[in-house]
Amino acid sequence: MNQDELKQIVGREAVNYIQDGMTVGLGTGSTVKHLVEALGKRVQTENLNIVGVPTSNRTAKRAKELGITIKDIDQVDHIDLTIDGADQIDEHYQGIKGGGIAHLREKIVAINSRKNIWIVDESKLTKQLGSFPLPVEVIPYGSQQLFKKFKKRGYNPKFRMDGDRFILTHSKNYIIDLGLGKIGDPHKLAKNLKDMTGVVEHGLFLDIVNTIIVGHANGTEVIKAR
Amino acid sequence: MNQDELKQIVGREAVNYIQDGMTVGLGTGSTVKHLVEALGKRVQTENLNIVGVPTSNRTAKRAKELGITIKDIDQVDHIDLTIDGADQIDEHYQGIKGGGIAHLREKIVAINSRKNIWIVDESKLTKQLGSFPLPVEVIPYGSQQLFKKFKKRGYNPKFRMDGDRFILTHSKNYIIDLGLGKIGDPHKLAKNLKDMTGVVEHGLFLDIVNTIIVGHANGTEVIKAR
Repeated sequence: MNQDELKQIVGREAVNYIQDGMTVGLGTGSTVKHLVEALGKRVQTENLNIVGVPTSNRTAKRAKELGITIKDIDQVDHIDLTIDGADQIDEHYQGIKGGGIAHLREKIVAINSRKNIWIVDESKLTKQLGSFPLPVEVIPYGSQQLFKKFKKRGYNPKFRMDGDRFILTHSKNYIIDLGLGKIGDPHKLAKNLKDMTGVVEHGLFLDIVNTIIVGHANGTEVIKAR
Repeated sequence: MNQDELKQIVGREAVNYIQDGMTVGLGTGSTVKHLVEALGKRVQTENLNIVGVPTSNRTAKRAKELGITIKDIDQVDHIDLTIDGADQIDEHYQGIKGGGIAHLREKIVAINSRKNIWIVDESKLTKQLGSFPLPVEVIPYGSQQLFKKFKKRGYNPKFRMDGDRFILTHSKNYIIDLGLGKIGDPHKLAKNLKDMTGVVEHGLFLDIVNTIIVGHANGTEVIKAR
């Protein structure tokens, strides 16, 4: 099986965790895409009463096309379950997200959810976080000064660019990717980053995921993380 | 003397701290306005070589009109001195800023400055912070959920509105003002707030100011804070 086939099987597997009447956070990315397709089918064939809370315009658009009721995070009382991908997951089930530009919205939806499921192909599992660049969303104003501070700390920072234009997040902020190699203490790093003025959020998702569905060539594995 | 006259004397006093060749952060507000006018006069009459780093469009516009060279924070190597107002200062010389919408930019400029001077009329001095509402700049996405959390913590939150429209900061974020009454431990509160996903920054300016120039009816008082 190739990587996309692995993503497809976990996306289809995850849809079984969604029950009638739930408000469900819908993540972003190539794995979640398969989940949304599978959810659309279930909603149509089983006539499910589901409210989806999307974390990106792309997910919102596709969910709507498939007939899934969509609400904004600020229109719902709570979120029962959020299903999202992850870019890297370590052996303590801490994660990095943010290969895309939606990680701030994804985190806001995740921390407001009673349960979180991550769906990934097996290539995302690792012993220690850090080989995947850690995205930090920063206020454009003063970002060059922040960049210098990251550099001084040895974070190996890099603005995320599209040619010579800064890539903008949903909130019109910049992203600085940190090439850390290895992250010894994710909690300490998270605190250090968030404490800095100008940092809006970072891509460390700590103590958040409850269940991980991993796609292997020989089938899916379900990990109870916490 | 009325309040505006007090603001005027401290604004004029503060300009004497600016030396030829300096890069100077210029705050925002009614007291800083008098400083900028006085600086404009000095630049013209003494032919000073000053670079101003403004924290708001209003300050930038007026400084330019007065012939002060203006640069963006991301175009300067460092800032020698920043002069700004404050909304409340306690007996340990910690402050709250953010009656306006510029407090994020003001903080970014302040923490990138080698020295900070605050200029205030005497009404801004208090024993303990908190009677002035503490502004928190938040990402609009998910802000209703954040508001509920503030409420649960007893922070007495209030969105800053203009009629039925949310007031937007420079960074297009919302402001939630916290009516805390008294802030027992500003450092702890600052950490708790900044740790929350969706919080961009808050109006507590801790361990930042070096010198405070206070306007009293009988003249100016200069406090060496740290």
